[in-house]
Amino acid sequence: MNSLLGNITQLAQFLIQERIKPGDFVIDGTAGNGHDTLFLAKLVSDNGKVYSFDIQSQAIEYTKEKLLKESLFNRVELIMSSHECIKKYVKNKIKVAMFNLGYLPGGNHSITTKGNSTILALEQVLELLLPGGIISICLYCGHSEGIKELELVNSFLDTLNNKDYNVVKLNYVNKKNDPPKLVLIEKN
Amino acid sequence: MNSLLGNITQLAQFLIQERIKPGDFVIDGTAGNGHDTLFLAKLVSDNGKVYSFDIQSQAIEYTKEKLLKESLFNRVELIMSSHECIKKYVKNKIKVAMFNLGYLPGGNHSITTKGNSTILALEQVLELLLPGGIISICLYCGHSEGIKELELVNSFLDTLNNKDYNVVKLNYVNKKNDPPKLVLIEKN
Repeated sequence: MNSLLGNITQLAQFLIQERIKPGDFVIDGTAGNGHDTLFLAKLVSDNGKVYSFDIQSQAIEYTKEKLLKESLFNRVELIMSSHECIKKYVKNKIKVAMFNLGYLPGGNHSITTKGNSTILALEQVLELLLPGGIISICLYCGHSEGIKELELVNSFLDTLNNKDYNVVKLNYVNKKNDPPKLVLIEKN
Repeated sequence: MNSLLGNITQLAQFLIQERIKPGDFVIDGTAGNGHDTLFLAKLVSDNGKVYSFDIQSQAIEYTKEKLLKESLFNRVELIMSSHECIKKYVKNKIKVAMFNLGYLPGGNHSITTKGNSTILALEQVLELLLPGGIISICLYCGHSEGIKELELVNSFLDTLNNKDYNVVKLNYVNKKNDPPKLVLIEKN
């Protein structure tokens, strides 16, 4: 049996998967090595679409390759741009957005998501989010930029009205070495 | 669409439901008004069993009534005893245990679960838990006994080896008035 709690990105996928129905529009704010984009592409069907953002060509290539291998590239709009430009590219209302912050695994660790642009992206996604829609955010605070980003995201979450949004933070209790955190925002 | 995050007990059910297969043995450590026992009874099938504990006859009656109405009473062993006696009654290995701590809604609020017996119950459940099995614990710290219980549970969680258990704590970020907390323990 697969572990439910052992891997933060799989836990994020588990939590949001039942929200997504065929025909939905969704966002992957951090294409990275393509895991979440592929996961989302499987769920939206040929009638839906995944808007997948990354600033690194390497990430765009990885993701494209994964999608082509599974014949799902037609369901995805791969956008080599920062997620702070989401509203420029996405005009549809969306059901889900996933953010897996930090640096590209196996890539240049000095290129990481930054708190300020992450907040800009989250603000835009909240405007596009349908009622009942969910944003998942995996945060990694094992590097200095990640610590700053976590602080900014925490401050941003505190500003969300509890009538409009349910916000839950998941922390690993007994893991060593700065375990990742998962934040979920649900629009009412 | 039902809210995923709006209700802590429903969120607990959502997180553990895919673990339970027909024929499994599971525990409801706090029968209360029977919601979790009924939820579990639906999942275990006629080959499995729910062991459901409560010290209050009112809770046992509520729960029995709910089960009879759905013709599921045959899948449940209702035990009017504290969950600190779990090992006396349960000899099978179990897949899941649910605890919804605090007082009986609509009952006598001075009768609440107590941290010390909760820890004794958790220790026994961990011994009975199968690999891949999960314990869910909903904690309410809006009353003084609940605050003490939360502290004891937190200290207990810190003792769990991260090689043997994945432990995740879910906190509502933007809710007022001491929102409930959810803890999940998964055995590796």
